[in-house]
Amino acid sequence: MTTDFTLTCPIPLSDYPNVTLAHGGGGRLMHNLIDKLFAATFARQAVGAQHDGAVFTASAGRMAFTTDSYVVQPIFFPGGDIGTLAVNGTVNDLAMCGARPLYLSVGLILEEGLPMQSLWRIAQSIASAADAAGVQVITGDTKVVDKGKGDGIFINTAGVGVLTHDLNISPLAVRPDDAVILSGDIGRHGIAIMAAREGLSFESTIESDCAPLADSVLALLDAGIDVHCLRDLTRGGLASALVEIASAGGVQVAVDEAIIPVNEDVRGACEILGLDPLYVANEGRYVAFVPPHQAQAACAIMGDSACIIGHVQSGAGRVVMRSVIGADRLIDMLSGEQLPRIC
Amino acid sequence: MTTDFTLTCPIPLSDYPNVTLAHGGGGRLMHNLIDKLFAATFARQAVGAQHDGAVFTASAGRMAFTTDSYVVQPIFFPGGDIGTLAVNGTVNDLAMCGARPLYLSVGLILEEGLPMQSLWRIAQSIASAADAAGVQVITGDTKVVDKGKGDGIFINTAGVGVLTHDLNISPLAVRPDDAVILSGDIGRHGIAIMAAREGLSFESTIESDCAPLADSVLALLDAGIDVHCLRDLTRGGLASALVEIASAGGVQVAVDEAIIPVNEDVRGACEILGLDPLYVANEGRYVAFVPPHQAQAACAIMGDSACIIGHVQSGAGRVVMRSVIGADRLIDMLSGEQLPRIC
Repeated sequence: MTTDFTLTCPIPLSDYPNVTLAHGGGGRLMHNLIDKLFAATFARQAVGAQHDGAVFTASAGRMAFTTDSYVVQPIFFPGGDIGTLAVNGTVNDLAMCGARPLYLSVGLILEEGLPMQSLWRIAQSIASAADAAGVQVITGDTKVVDKGKGDGIFINTAGVGVLTHDLNISPLAVRPDDAVILSGDIGRHGIAIMAAREGLSFESTIESDCAPLADSVLALLDAGIDVHCLRDLTRGGLASALVEIASAGGVQVAVDEAIIPVNEDVRGACEILGLDPLYVANEGRYVAFVPPHQAQAACAIMGDSACIIGHVQSGAGRVVMRSVIGADRLIDMLSGEQLPRIC
Repeated sequence: MTTDFTLTCPIPLSDYPNVTLAHGGGGRLMHNLIDKLFAATFARQAVGAQHDGAVFTASAGRMAFTTDSYVVQPIFFPGGDIGTLAVNGTVNDLAMCGARPLYLSVGLILEEGLPMQSLWRIAQSIASAADAAGVQVITGDTKVVDKGKGDGIFINTAGVGVLTHDLNISPLAVRPDDAVILSGDIGRHGIAIMAAREGLSFESTIESDCAPLADSVLALLDAGIDVHCLRDLTRGGLASALVEIASAGGVQVAVDEAIIPVNEDVRGACEILGLDPLYVANEGRYVAFVPPHQAQAACAIMGDSACIIGHVQSGAGRVVMRSVIGADRLIDMLSGEQLPRIC
């Protein structure tokens, strides 16, 4: 279904400039909001109209199921908004299972007073991102909390996808000598959010890398690459993803810092803010672990900005990085967080 | 999997008496929280360990997918808590599609400062309610927002279930002469929440009716009842559910007020609070629309407290109620809400 993006909010803003508690109360106002603002925008009505759930037809085989809540602040940022993020984040979690994303649910928690125009803009972003990622929003829910008990809007999306291959993509499938391929430069999402939040400006605006990754992953699988493990680089960034995989897979991962691409402006911002780009969140980047003989082919499929940043060694659950000055250092997970509420 | 309910919170409360922002940051603290408090409590590790998503095997056929966010206040109330509600609410939405609930996702939005002990208690409620409803929590997500930007805890659950029959359960399947069967007395959940919130006390404590409805619905289907439509009576209560179905199905629904069971204490509380029990939310009650010749059999399967409250007439999308004094009145949806944040 192609979404028809009208520019005018279908809820009359003169009547309801802001979301009210009654918009979540189960009565006529809530039904009006759902019918006019959501059902008309999403593909929902195509599948499971007039139900609290949607019904779809599955083929026999493996399916993936995932969820994420999105609490990013600010809700609009260069390169996307909380709606774009809520679609791509969950699409990417499905892709990291090796699944083709099919269906999304959208659960909204709105704070009383949220401008209706913002909600409308976000609903359109959700529809547009879903179209771009090839998924259908087929079920949803809207709640409203009192002013001061939320923060504008929180979104949960859950996703269902289908696996059409026989691989077991998991840290447990990682083998010594596997190549570690990074899909592109790191740190843009986290820095875009921080810059928007703190009112920082750089020579050129740093935009979030927020994007769907399913096509890239499915291209690897379609090409017969024996993908061992996939991980998108969200909260905790590249470093945390590598530590998670090394730890869960019981292997050592060795990477070369000099090869890891970081945009010039992102690097500058990280220096000013005292952040290590290795730990900064991304929303459109992932790592793939593949057998060494397929590394070049996989890298080519993953695109021009992909690069082989290291390989797997036998050894016990740790990540070693050769730094730009040639010294090896152990990479660990941070204890807490660098950047709260980046997704 | 049977859950082992230990009484001691596995996160040392002396170290972390309250949830901190770092618990949602993607680092070691978050992983520790997920591993110790959630993965050990839920069935998650049984299916999709070490992934951002879970993988399960589906049979060919129809499946249901649904989501709800839960923002109830207070989070603990007589008869349940936000965790019980988050499981049963979504299980019931699947049941209302005629599906056998299989898998749940749990997305938590925690407010900085939430007592760790409360989170532990809620995690146990989720596990216990999932066990009771026969569903597995197989994937999840945890976010933390700054103090003052949330309200303790919000929970989203999404659910996946399977349909093992050929009926199209929908308002569009409702036919004139169908019997309308109500599964039990109404209004207990909403009144339990209001009483807890306002500090009201009655002769006996009014407990929420929060319960899973899937077994009851599946028993109807297994017995060969030609179920036309199902709806659980959450936000907006019995009245809104009937109006929704009448409106979507293009039929008139006639019900008899004298037959609708309302607990004595609930009726008293409604009078004091100026509420109409017809509009008060329930979390363990539903209506079934079935052909007239199967009404008695269906009612018997739905249990001792079920009753036939009315029937469907040809006519245009409205609900008519014969009141206790014998007069007919039109029932409409409320514009906004009676009771904010009851689920």
